[in-house]
Amino acid sequence: MEILSLHNPVFAAYVAAAAIMILKAVSMSWLTVARMLQVRGGFRSPEDLRQTLLNPDPNPAQLAPDDRVERVRRIQQNDQENLPYFLIAGFLFVFTEPSPLFAQWLFFGYVVTRLMHFIAYLTAQTHDLRAALWTPGSLILIYMGAACLMAAISYSI
Amino acid sequence: MEILSLHNPVFAAYVAAAAIMILKAVSMSWLTVARMLQVRGGFRSPEDLRQTLLNPDPNPAQLAPDDRVERVRRIQQNDQENLPYFLIAGFLFVFTEPSPLFAQWLFFGYVVTRLMHFIAYLTAQTHDLRAALWTPGSLILIYMGAACLMAAISYSI
Amino acid sequence: MEILSLHNPVFAAYVAAAAIMILKAVSMSWLTVARMLQVRGGFRSPEDLRQTLLNPDPNPAQLAPDDRVERVRRIQQNDQENLPYFLIAGFLFVFTEPSPLFAQWLFFGYVVTRLMHFIAYLTAQTHDLRAALWTPGSLILIYMGAACLMAAISYSI
Repeated sequence: MEILSLHNPVFAAYVAAAAIMILKAVSMSWLTVARMLQVRGGFRSPEDLRQTLLNPDPNPAQLAPDDRVERVRRIQQNDQENLPYFLIAGFLFVFTEPSPLFAQWLFFGYVVTRLMHFIAYLTAQTHDLRAALWTPGSLILIYMGAACLMAAISYSI
Repeated sequence: MEILSLHNPVFAAYVAAAAIMILKAVSMSWLTVARMLQVRGGFRSPEDLRQTLLNPDPNPAQLAPDDRVERVRRIQQNDQENLPYFLIAGFLFVFTEPSPLFAQWLFFGYVVTRLMHFIAYLTAQTHDLRAALWTPGSLILIYMGAACLMAAISYSI
Repeated sequence: MEILSLHNPVFAAYVAAAAIMILKAVSMSWLTVARMLQVRGGFRSPEDLRQTLLNPDPNPAQLAPDDRVERVRRIQQNDQENLPYFLIAGFLFVFTEPSPLFAQWLFFGYVVTRLMHFIAYLTAQTHDLRAALWTPGSLILIYMGAACLMAAISYSI
């Protein structure tokens, strides 16, 4: 069977997991927008204090950091430290031809723990819980990266 | 026709759009460098105050944020929140086998609005205009992510 | 020969280089964790000051930036400005069917200079040295991006 075909259950699982993570990442931007509208602030550029349709009554406090907005930005920052690497590592992992069941466990294990990490971060749970929910995804990334590296080396020899 | 071939107009359009976005992203780093040289500052690490060939006359003010530099860093930050997801979502979208014309509209619509967003940000236009130019790209990302997810699910059933 | 096969030495070299860069990026998160444990601080969320198993004796100074932690965060930030674009540009560059030797030079030249850049940043070498080690990777990225763009255009005409 062709590797990069949606008929390959490993690739189909990857595409589903990747799409969910991309939609999650994009929705962080919209969540930031929603919170900026709610608190009418959390802006970062001097020009954001100009009077406009969306900001009819500007004042300098709007440039101060607001924790409701900054929290989403920290979550988004955490996504940037993790998701792009998952999106590539997961794709390359498909070429190592893992068993479909094992690959699905890795891909969806990543997705589920990342979504739980998001909820824990958004609702300000303890650092320990956040760490516990971040760790599985990071280990999955390391495993997939190492598997790709070994496959690439073994084919090169 | 093979999906991942430059003879496939959908894939060729993706590669062109992705390459333009990558070159855009990389040029943000060079723009930061250019502005740091211009203002002789905007540094972030304590060691950047050491006397060197490129910084013959260091002083502590060089570590203070400078808006000409910080503006490009905010643009680069915005790229990081968007471009990696476009680069993957666009690639996976090719596997849903969209019509070439529709795919070209999405890919180049993304590229054009992102470049316009960049110009609006660099020249300090209003938050409203920036938001208006960011929104199409984000909606294109959501559409492509959802299309990939549905394709992956429909092949798995 | 199939382009996207580990039997293709260009693709195998890309997979090896990408895997090394992904493992490098992920290890930055663990280095941050290690340094946060070492300095018992460098936290960023208000809830990180709650008493937990991993933080039995919290105090407000733990939310202050600590340079040992912030340095790794700056390195990670630099990775985010570079690695995702390399990971995609390198992959698309495989479709331009470069000679294996040339591709290996580009891919591993990128990897080696990025690892040297990391060591220079971690050990607080001068800005000039860091710039000298960042530049080759950026030029490789620009070259690969331009080669992909030209290939995509030449197939579209």
